[in-house]
Amino acid sequence: MSSITCFGEILLRLSPLNGYERISRTNELKMEYAGAESNVAASLSLLGHRAWYITRLPSHGVGDAAVRAIREFGVNTESIVRGGERVGTYFIEHGSSLRPTRIIYDREHSAIADSSPDEFNWQQLLDGQDWFVSTGITPALSASCAQLCTKALATAKVLGVKTAFDLNFRRSLWSLEEGRKTLQPMLDHVDILFSNIGSAADVLDIHPTERGYSWEELVKSTWETAEKLMKYREFEWVALTIRAHHSATENDWAGILYNGTDRYESRKYRFQIVDRLGGGDAFMAGVIHGLSQGWDGQKTVEFASAASAIKHTIPGDINISSEEEILEVAEGNVSGRVKR
Amino acid sequence: MSSITCFGEILLRLSPLNGYERISRTNELKMEYAGAESNVAASLSLLGHRAWYITRLPSHGVGDAAVRAIREFGVNTESIVRGGERVGTYFIEHGSSLRPTRIIYDREHSAIADSSPDEFNWQQLLDGQDWFVSTGITPALSASCAQLCTKALATAKVLGVKTAFDLNFRRSLWSLEEGRKTLQPMLDHVDILFSNIGSAADVLDIHPTERGYSWEELVKSTWETAEKLMKYREFEWVALTIRAHHSATENDWAGILYNGTDRYESRKYRFQIVDRLGGGDAFMAGVIHGLSQGWDGQKTVEFASAASAIKHTIPGDINISSEEEILEVAEGNVSGRVKR
Amino acid sequence: MSSITCFGEILLRLSPLNGYERISRTNELKMEYAGAESNVAASLSLLGHRAWYITRLPSHGVGDAAVRAIREFGVNTESIVRGGERVGTYFIEHGSSLRPTRIIYDREHSAIADSSPDEFNWQQLLDGQDWFVSTGITPALSASCAQLCTKALATAKVLGVKTAFDLNFRRSLWSLEEGRKTLQPMLDHVDILFSNIGSAADVLDIHPTERGYSWEELVKSTWETAEKLMKYREFEWVALTIRAHHSATENDWAGILYNGTDRYESRKYRFQIVDRLGGGDAFMAGVIHGLSQGWDGQKTVEFASAASAIKHTIPGDINISSEEEILEVAEGNVSGRVKR
Amino acid sequence: MSSITCFGEILLRLSPLNGYERISRTNELKMEYAGAESNVAASLSLLGHRAWYITRLPSHGVGDAAVRAIREFGVNTESIVRGGERVGTYFIEHGSSLRPTRIIYDREHSAIADSSPDEFNWQQLLDGQDWFVSTGITPALSASCAQLCTKALATAKVLGVKTAFDLNFRRSLWSLEEGRKTLQPMLDHVDILFSNIGSAADVLDIHPTERGYSWEELVKSTWETAEKLMKYREFEWVALTIRAHHSATENDWAGILYNGTDRYESRKYRFQIVDRLGGGDAFMAGVIHGLSQGWDGQKTVEFASAASAIKHTIPGDINISSEEEILEVAEGNVSGRVKR
Amino acid sequence: MSSITCFGEILLRLSPLNGYERISRTNELKMEYAGAESNVAASLSLLGHRAWYITRLPSHGVGDAAVRAIREFGVNTESIVRGGERVGTYFIEHGSSLRPTRIIYDREHSAIADSSPDEFNWQQLLDGQDWFVSTGITPALSASCAQLCTKALATAKVLGVKTAFDLNFRRSLWSLEEGRKTLQPMLDHVDILFSNIGSAADVLDIHPTERGYSWEELVKSTWETAEKLMKYREFEWVALTIRAHHSATENDWAGILYNGTDRYESRKYRFQIVDRLGGGDAFMAGVIHGLSQGWDGQKTVEFASAASAIKHTIPGDINISSEEEILEVAEGNVSGRVKR
Amino acid sequence: MSSITCFGEILLRLSPLNGYERISRTNELKMEYAGAESNVAASLSLLGHRAWYITRLPSHGVGDAAVRAIREFGVNTESIVRGGERVGTYFIEHGSSLRPTRIIYDREHSAIADSSPDEFNWQQLLDGQDWFVSTGITPALSASCAQLCTKALATAKVLGVKTAFDLNFRRSLWSLEEGRKTLQPMLDHVDILFSNIGSAADVLDIHPTERGYSWEELVKSTWETAEKLMKYREFEWVALTIRAHHSATENDWAGILYNGTDRYESRKYRFQIVDRLGGGDAFMAGVIHGLSQGWDGQKTVEFASAASAIKHTIPGDINISSEEEILEVAEGNVSGRVKR
Repeated sequence: MSSITCFGEILLRLSPLNGYERISRTNELKMEYAGAESNVAASLSLLGHRAWYITRLPSHGVGDAAVRAIREFGVNTESIVRGGERVGTYFIEHGSSLRPTRIIYDREHSAIADSSPDEFNWQQLLDGQDWFVSTGITPALSASCAQLCTKALATAKVLGVKTAFDLNFRRSLWSLEEGRKTLQPMLDHVDILFSNIGSAADVLDIHPTERGYSWEELVKSTWETAEKLMKYREFEWVALTIRAHHSATENDWAGILYNGTDRYESRKYRFQIVDRLGGGDAFMAGVIHGLSQGWDGQKTVEFASAASAIKHTIPGDINISSEEEILEVAEGNVSGRVKR
Repeated sequence: MSSITCFGEILLRLSPLNGYERISRTNELKMEYAGAESNVAASLSLLGHRAWYITRLPSHGVGDAAVRAIREFGVNTESIVRGGERVGTYFIEHGSSLRPTRIIYDREHSAIADSSPDEFNWQQLLDGQDWFVSTGITPALSASCAQLCTKALATAKVLGVKTAFDLNFRRSLWSLEEGRKTLQPMLDHVDILFSNIGSAADVLDIHPTERGYSWEELVKSTWETAEKLMKYREFEWVALTIRAHHSATENDWAGILYNGTDRYESRKYRFQIVDRLGGGDAFMAGVIHGLSQGWDGQKTVEFASAASAIKHTIPGDINISSEEEILEVAEGNVSGRVKR
Repeated sequence: MSSITCFGEILLRLSPLNGYERISRTNELKMEYAGAESNVAASLSLLGHRAWYITRLPSHGVGDAAVRAIREFGVNTESIVRGGERVGTYFIEHGSSLRPTRIIYDREHSAIADSSPDEFNWQQLLDGQDWFVSTGITPALSASCAQLCTKALATAKVLGVKTAFDLNFRRSLWSLEEGRKTLQPMLDHVDILFSNIGSAADVLDIHPTERGYSWEELVKSTWETAEKLMKYREFEWVALTIRAHHSATENDWAGILYNGTDRYESRKYRFQIVDRLGGGDAFMAGVIHGLSQGWDGQKTVEFASAASAIKHTIPGDINISSEEEILEVAEGNVSGRVKR
Repeated sequence: MSSITCFGEILLRLSPLNGYERISRTNELKMEYAGAESNVAASLSLLGHRAWYITRLPSHGVGDAAVRAIREFGVNTESIVRGGERVGTYFIEHGSSLRPTRIIYDREHSAIADSSPDEFNWQQLLDGQDWFVSTGITPALSASCAQLCTKALATAKVLGVKTAFDLNFRRSLWSLEEGRKTLQPMLDHVDILFSNIGSAADVLDIHPTERGYSWEELVKSTWETAEKLMKYREFEWVALTIRAHHSATENDWAGILYNGTDRYESRKYRFQIVDRLGGGDAFMAGVIHGLSQGWDGQKTVEFASAASAIKHTIPGDINISSEEEILEVAEGNVSGRVKR
Repeated sequence: MSSITCFGEILLRLSPLNGYERISRTNELKMEYAGAESNVAASLSLLGHRAWYITRLPSHGVGDAAVRAIREFGVNTESIVRGGERVGTYFIEHGSSLRPTRIIYDREHSAIADSSPDEFNWQQLLDGQDWFVSTGITPALSASCAQLCTKALATAKVLGVKTAFDLNFRRSLWSLEEGRKTLQPMLDHVDILFSNIGSAADVLDIHPTERGYSWEELVKSTWETAEKLMKYREFEWVALTIRAHHSATENDWAGILYNGTDRYESRKYRFQIVDRLGGGDAFMAGVIHGLSQGWDGQKTVEFASAASAIKHTIPGDINISSEEEILEVAEGNVSGRVKR
Repeated sequence: MSSITCFGEILLRLSPLNGYERISRTNELKMEYAGAESNVAASLSLLGHRAWYITRLPSHGVGDAAVRAIREFGVNTESIVRGGERVGTYFIEHGSSLRPTRIIYDREHSAIADSSPDEFNWQQLLDGQDWFVSTGITPALSASCAQLCTKALATAKVLGVKTAFDLNFRRSLWSLEEGRKTLQPMLDHVDILFSNIGSAADVLDIHPTERGYSWEELVKSTWETAEKLMKYREFEWVALTIRAHHSATENDWAGILYNGTDRYESRKYRFQIVDRLGGGDAFMAGVIHGLSQGWDGQKTVEFASAASAIKHTIPGDINISSEEEILEVAEGNVSGRVKR
């Protein structure tokens, strides 16, 4: 098993307690904590790795709860810096059928966004680790976070820590220009790049020749993007996800994995969605797990895609599944028969 | 934006708090308030109109709550008469798959049913309004309600207020004979008539030549009904809805709009149902909105049908959606992609 | 153990799911079923008697649920007549401290109120029973109910069935005049009369010489009322309850039992109230249990008062307690120590 | 209507209160009581039969609640033996889409498993009954339960009570060897045998020649199994269910009924699953109801299959449906139209 | 009845759904909206006045919900400015017994704090109003809010609108120095000043000669403070509240009213607390109601104190009570007897 | 800060979700995990110590949840042995006023009770630790647990690890004879003994000369017991708790600490109880914290008693409080004023 450090923001996630209610009409909220990198950390810890999560959280009840939420999964939280005023927050309204899921972000001025670069000693934090994980959301939070994330990636490379980075471009957080200026230089330190067609277009101006919406066209375009990413810079691996939207509650999904030579593509899943959030993070954790276990590319991409598929059927952002459960789906058992 | 007065009964709506439980086995109820005309009023207020809601409600906590429930949406409730003993009540048991949704009505002797015709001064209530809205449920409540509704429609015509009326025939409230005797004369005062195949058959004995159950047959029969309605009386517009039942949780749906000359038909929606109630009311509000905005028939029927489709994905009777959200669906975006 | 038939109305009891919320602001309701006589039947069944409950309930989901709610406690429901349209309903708003508990009744036109006197064959229903139980609420529901209740009591006397009757005068249901005219003749058939100072005043114009509000004065006045009741008519026993209100959530309480000769008075309880409803019914069941077990007057009144005291600490109308639990409190163990 | 005695274990059924949460992450549980034979008893009581349920339950609050849960449906619980320490328990995690439903059993050392054979006097319990019902789960609980179940079946035969038995083989309870050794001799006393392909294979080593997974192949294999069962021993009827798993939330389903001569096969249902548990028990109750009503084989198997189909759309283990509701589905009305 | 404009911030109020849970451990939140001035507006609207509420709220679902929450009570929300990014938020952890209630504020950068002074046209907003209401919380939010509040008070004075202002000093929002510098000049425009011993000390450096903690000492000190406030500046009225803390769940409470000549003091209440928040706002609304009804000082202070006392027994910040209910308590009926 | 190892059983704790409902009538349960030693471990971790928790838990969802529940507080769970079949369970019914709290245990055959002594290597587990903590519940679970606990205490002494042990005698788990025979020899290895009058009597036959129930008599008897314990064996410290029951919801409480020479007694608390369970465990953790911080006896006993008092106001078994919060109460601030 590996030692893995994840860095980012964990947010207070608020969603209507009763199913498909709209935020403007609900009276009760489910109170959870989630973030791309903390989701990955939790998944990896559940899969047996030693995971550390690095962030900054205020010293009050909401901050304490966020720490507990991630510690519950066995993630080491001892290096979390306590300080700042608020926990970034988002409201989810789960869509249904033709009504889309909507997210209202209220994450500005969060403790991590307001952190100062010298609050984290990356040399110390990454020493002896096997992997460093972050995503394009983190540098988008503030200039300080961009600096921290860049520093972390650079330090990782110096220390021989493998780096995994998901482009995860969020238009609500910054402009294409800002994003590109910040993210492109960071990619020099990235070993395993995670993306999809959209993020590659946003961050690197990489576009498939034609864009169609049938599954076959989506697969083709994703492979074309993968090749162009590999030409942009020789990553160790690029891992991309493919999603076709039938509705807010039914999607098709697959993943691909490419090292410039070998092409691995998972089976295609069709699933009914219980909770859409965290699907990409489950895939990222799955790929890291497969690579760190020394599995071959096909097994790895099947595992990661199965992990993501299962995640879509579990409430919350985190893929609370065992390796055994994921492997069973990866091997094609999607009949949903009762396990007694 | 228009000034619109809606008249009818708002009921206490009780449904099992936990999903698909049956009424005879549930221990917890969601407590809401809904009625065809108050649903329309709420939708129109949310779309930016000045909406008034007229009814009669008792002066106790349940009556207060009903007032609040409709006032919450910005509907003006100052003309609601307070008096009587009880708020009409209904219990909903949400069906699933092959099990139908069931409604148990307990609405007799409600405050509005027990009202006396002189409690409402229509001259005053309708003066200066652009629209008057009611449905075939209201006159079915009691002789007094029938008298009130007829008087309101007649007064509206005198005052030059446009009238919209949904046949909404409910066999649980009265017999075909009673219904026809009461409703047919009222239609003399109606400008925009809302119906579907079934209500036209029940109230006006208008039947399509053949009745089939394929989507194409349903569309054809609905158009035939529309034409016969226009022959029965030259309404300004007739607006009809088409619904095909795959199961309690999956329907196909479309709307048509006809002025005797031009035929407008919306795209067809297939959706998974979160809450079936209020779908027709959302359509009615959509048509009134389109006409009052001066939109053309096609845009109007697309908007109204999209409004109804979205409503089916929202818990409760009311279509809590903005014009922007509805237009997006009306323009064909039904992929359900996350909005961040 | 005895065979006991209870006759009355069971209502749908709706109260805010979350503690002390007001009816006009709540969104979720606890859905239960309760009524004076069904509460007594449930208590007696839990204490080991064969209890029958007689009422009329509609043949729909809400009526089914009411049947189940009483059957759950082992009460025999086979003689319940199914028919009518609605289940009488009441809304409870639990008060707290200086804010009183409020009840909104919506019970007119219920199935039992609308019953016809020939729907119940008392000869058959009471044949072989040991006890018949009803209260002053039942005849207040409608002329038909008054007739039914009178007939039942008279038949019981003829058959040698012991009759227990709680005056339970409710000003919201009828006037003093109506009540007195109906109830006074019924008392000729009553063996064990249950009352308190207020009901005796309302129904029989029996008043204590002076009315004070200290505990001692309340006890004195209650005894005076008991004596006057015994003078009014030689009941086998009169059983009265004494309650002092410190607030909506704290009361003092005791019970007395009097056969014209011997005076039994229970210890005084002070308790914090979880649910105020059903306290008198628990007392009534307790007295019937004691008498039917052949206990002496002191044990009986202590048991009945303890039963009532415990009831005030249990949510819902029904005293879900075993004889053993009640006896322990009756013997003075009110320390509330954990039972492991 | 018939008098029917069911014998088995009723368990405490705990499932996450909020939809699709996993057991390892939930904080709130729905607390219900269910068991194969008690499910059948409840269904039969709801269909109008006199049903008795026989088991052993401890004399504490959880045991009391189990008794109430079954008594609520009108089942006679007077012969339940009270004793032992614990109520067997299981945790359900409702699966969704490709994620299977999982059950964690914690049922060892339950009151019924720890019972002694002389606690039940079958001669007395079965005297005058029309039917005796049990399943292969009951003898699997303990040696004592196996002895009890065998004794009950044998006594029933002596007394001329018809016996219905569902093989219901559970690999989590015992091995194939143990199961076969115990169950095979019991079948000598069985009149109506319930099974499916899997249980017939497990208990009787009866396998279809080929096993395919298309619906047609499943139907064919099930008929082949039915014939082999009839060859194994001349049962009065064998009743088998057929299920194809599309996912945890969508199944196809049908039932067959065979008396060695006539072959009855129900229509095929496709449904979305609200609660998977109790589907087979609803079928069993449906067959017993049809046979006991003297219906022909086709009507019986259609009724039983419709009952099972509806059950899948209702939360909990029990098919809370009326005969009228089931017949409507059995006759092909699966459109899910609103019933007002 | 009067026309009353209230200005301030309405916050998202989040508290554990289940009673006394701590924020750091809860999983479910009650989602409400509250603020000192919106609480006053809601109370006054419930008492029959025409109330306007002025604030700034973002144009998203959470902002919409805040508007609805205040509109529900009949408050006019048409002048609310829509803009900004976030709704100020606070988390409440209800204390119990010796454990204090704790509030975590997350209100910086809210829409109203980020407003610019020219977004509100006070001349227009206050024209024709009878009263203007604000509190010391509003100017503490930002320099812009301080400017807005000062401008509003000054404009009100020019237009002859009576001004009511509660010092409401919050140490968590600003320092004594900042507060004093901002608030003292604003008091020149205040007609009715609301305070207590603590706020007078914080804002005006006014201290009682001795400070004791017995009820008598608290009353004496409060009167001394009232006199010193009147000496500081000749307000029309000063209205002060007195609170003695027995525990987080039991307080004593009274109010006084002083015009420099006449001294009015309410009866003293002891109550168990259901929800502590909004107690002072209910008092403020009560005083404004009494004065605007032309009641004498004693009736006014009794009404206002009763309003506050009742508020402490109602969940949420708002005193959802009718004038009749409050008057009953004001007249001394605190027995909590059931109202049927 | 210290390194502390706690050994015992963590149970699934099930209690009615809604307040004071009885187990036999509830439909929803709160699902938590608690145990004396895990409560102590959680408290100590929250106070800043490095806490390890040792137990045995099955490898399924319920076992996983138990691990997460303790890990959430920062307790190290890496040495928990995974195996066995079930998690011991208990049901709590929270009493109110004169109705006692009741606990139904279903903990036999749990994973830890069924453990074998060689599954724990105490030499390794205790090496380098500062403290070992267990209670009299653990050896009561099974012969194997008794052996394990004895071995652990003995090993601790050899390794110089300080041992803290709470007698915690539970009559529902074993007889006085069994308990004495097992526990008395274990006390040879105990440094700090926790008890109260009752456990000292049960385990060591130590009784106060007279037993009274006034607070003064309870204090006197407790001191007499402390002295006799010190005479029985020279413990480093004995720490005893004193509780007077006014009702299930109101208690008086204090703690004493005695080293044979110096007598420390905390202030007396009166509190309303939110959750009675875990009060003694909070005291134990408080004493260990004080001693390990090197505080004097008075500060230690005040801290531990305040911790216990606060615990009674928090739902669940665990004292989720910071050192700062506890110290504030320990210093006498029990007014419950709002902390903003």
